[in-house]
Amino acid sequence: MPKNALYAQSGGVTPVINASAFGVIHAARQHRDRIGTVYAAENGVLGILNERLIDTAQLSDAQLALLKNAPGGAFGSCRHKLKHGAELKRLFEVFAAHDIGYLFYNGGGDSADTCLKVAEYAQYQGLELTAVHVPKTIDNDLPLTDNSPGFGSVAKYVATSIREAGLDVASMASSSTKVFILEVMGRHTGWIAAAAGLASDRDGAPPHLILTPEVPFEAGRFLKAVQETVARVGYCAIVASEGLRDTHGVFLSDAGSTDAFGHAQLGGVAPLLANLIKTELHHKCHWAVADYLQRAARHIASATDLAQAIAVGEAAVHYALAGIKSVMPAIVREDSEPYRWRLEPVPLLDVANREKPLPLEYLTSDGMHLSAAGRDYFLPLLQGEAPPPYLDGLPAYPSWQFELVSPRLTGFNAV
Amino acid sequence: MPKNALYAQSGGVTPVINASAFGVIHAARQHRDRIGTVYAAENGVLGILNERLIDTAQLSDAQLALLKNAPGGAFGSCRHKLKHGAELKRLFEVFAAHDIGYLFYNGGGDSADTCLKVAEYAQYQGLELTAVHVPKTIDNDLPLTDNSPGFGSVAKYVATSIREAGLDVASMASSSTKVFILEVMGRHTGWIAAAAGLASDRDGAPPHLILTPEVPFEAGRFLKAVQETVARVGYCAIVASEGLRDTHGVFLSDAGSTDAFGHAQLGGVAPLLANLIKTELHHKCHWAVADYLQRAARHIASATDLAQAIAVGEAAVHYALAGIKSVMPAIVREDSEPYRWRLEPVPLLDVANREKPLPLEYLTSDGMHLSAAGRDYFLPLLQGEAPPPYLDGLPAYPSWQFELVSPRLTGFNAV
Repeated sequence: MPKNALYAQSGGVTPVINASAFGVIHAARQHRDRIGTVYAAENGVLGILNERLIDTAQLSDAQLALLKNAPGGAFGSCRHKLKHGAELKRLFEVFAAHDIGYLFYNGGGDSADTCLKVAEYAQYQGLELTAVHVPKTIDNDLPLTDNSPGFGSVAKYVATSIREAGLDVASMASSSTKVFILEVMGRHTGWIAAAAGLASDRDGAPPHLILTPEVPFEAGRFLKAVQETVARVGYCAIVASEGLRDTHGVFLSDAGSTDAFGHAQLGGVAPLLANLIKTELHHKCHWAVADYLQRAARHIASATDLAQAIAVGEAAVHYALAGIKSVMPAIVREDSEPYRWRLEPVPLLDVANREKPLPLEYLTSDGMHLSAAGRDYFLPLLQGEAPPPYLDGLPAYPSWQFELVSPRLTGFNAV
Repeated sequence: MPKNALYAQSGGVTPVINASAFGVIHAARQHRDRIGTVYAAENGVLGILNERLIDTAQLSDAQLALLKNAPGGAFGSCRHKLKHGAELKRLFEVFAAHDIGYLFYNGGGDSADTCLKVAEYAQYQGLELTAVHVPKTIDNDLPLTDNSPGFGSVAKYVATSIREAGLDVASMASSSTKVFILEVMGRHTGWIAAAAGLASDRDGAPPHLILTPEVPFEAGRFLKAVQETVARVGYCAIVASEGLRDTHGVFLSDAGSTDAFGHAQLGGVAPLLANLIKTELHHKCHWAVADYLQRAARHIASATDLAQAIAVGEAAVHYALAGIKSVMPAIVREDSEPYRWRLEPVPLLDVANREKPLPLEYLTSDGMHLSAAGRDYFLPLLQGEAPPPYLDGLPAYPSWQFELVSPRLTGFNAV
């Protein structure tokens, strides 16, 4: 009897994480002689701990293909820091109870660390488990890969949004709103904000200023740049990362609460900046906070991102079957124009807990615009459209109601 | 020599206001024997006052067609309340200097009033001018028309956005964010928020709560509904109009409240609601403010809305040529399923300064969900997709650089 496989989603979801789920499950179905049942955990690692497993065989091939179209996490995700003692032990009890030989863990940097810890525990205990990490994060901060699946679609959303809102402001600026601020995600890195700079494809086109966590925020310099832009262009469209910090490294907007990993939960940089501009420059300001809208905008996903999300899922299965364990499929850029890429396995030891900041050379020397090098890097990632089907005027996203596998162990109550 | 025409955009722009510009200019080009030059005012009525006019002949037919794809106001718009004395007189000096016999004024309720005042002045003074108002407003608050061009596209954007963000929250709710709030436009009416209810196409689907200015906000009732939804569905997705008011009619966003650290809340109903939920129910909340993103989202425009925006522009020209003046083309709904509509002229006197609130029967009796009657009304308006062309991964919106006509009058400086 072949060993079974378990797929789990972890951390914040992306517009295309379900496409990676498709990649894993679809590839596993091509190898029924080597992989038995493919389980998915309900709500990520919590579902493993609580033995809430979904047999993905309940999805027909046609239903499985719908995973490519749906935002959110089809099986549920979670933010949970695995506790070393009882929880790690419990994972392997669940693996044993369901004869799991393959773990496909779909997440970002924190999840890569979890996946690595599981793999190391198995090796230390002499347990048979092939763990492969499937990369995903809108933050694009995973090391050793050209980009992180999920990011290209978010980049496409934010660049489209600032281009559109910029046209709106341009037409109102003579008598009304002169400054517009779009706050985007990026707690520690400015990848998303910088990518929005792609919308500025000619002199004077929005966005006019990009603010990232990599460049310490100085109010005076910022206000001067806003004022100069309004004088020159007639208005100013700004993209700001949620994780802006001042010159002392303090977050401009810290909601005062932290998530399960101790990260400050942010939000609200845009109204702070708007207030600053109104007070100091007396311009009428509008601001938007995209929040989950950017992270769920499957309707404007990048076809390139979608293809890569599927590919890393498939590659994870192929690596596992080849006995390559404790790795992550990394995207290797072979060329930018036209974009050519391939996948290769990189050791999880080199991935886990290493955040890749935005290289400063992707910004101009003033730190407030996208540089030519940045443009070359970002441009391929949002190429191609992959619209979902529409029904009754709205994207038709599938609705999932999964049956759980009967538990074989006594209860556990991880939260 | 036939009289010339003047087209002007007024007030906040929409994703499809330029499609109405196309309708006007394209229809006028079919009647060169009766309409001479078609001018467009730069930045709306300010451009008329300051004699900053654009000869639209500089747009080839192919360039003209691009107006159908572009958000924002191609010729610029403005927020300006026309002053009765000198400014009204000045308008007619400009009309006389450029032999304007037709005025096509593209705006909402305030603009309909301006258009009417201009028409009345002409009649009173015995001046030859045919003024027709071309309806547009994302707020959908124009009376006597089934809907206002611009609204259907915004409805499609907000319904898509809350459906997508809802799927995101659903997959995170077991361990993280349980409540999501999307703030949408609507200072005085809840049309946009209510339309987002279309995304909830089955029991438990987001949005779960809709908050409109028509229903006074009561914190206790709201919190109870949030808590019940979280208990029943596992999470709660909320759409809130920016213009929420308390039971005394006071805007929530003007309440001058402060956060836990004594910082003034910097505008935005969504962060206020999020704070309330965090403080009272202790749920992790996320919130988004769509602001101009919703109003400029041409990439997800409704094909029905686009067709109506073009049609009202064309009809305005046809009315003018038939000698029907001081009117607005109103959309008459003949049937909802399938949606059939026609245009007919309605007197501006009945349109100007009359705001159409959301009928309460479009909401359920608790005032917090879309009713069946509401669904029947809204559903046709966002049917059909009309994506713009894409170039380099982003919507390819045209860039306009118009030459101005040489002034024939001495300067005027309206701002």
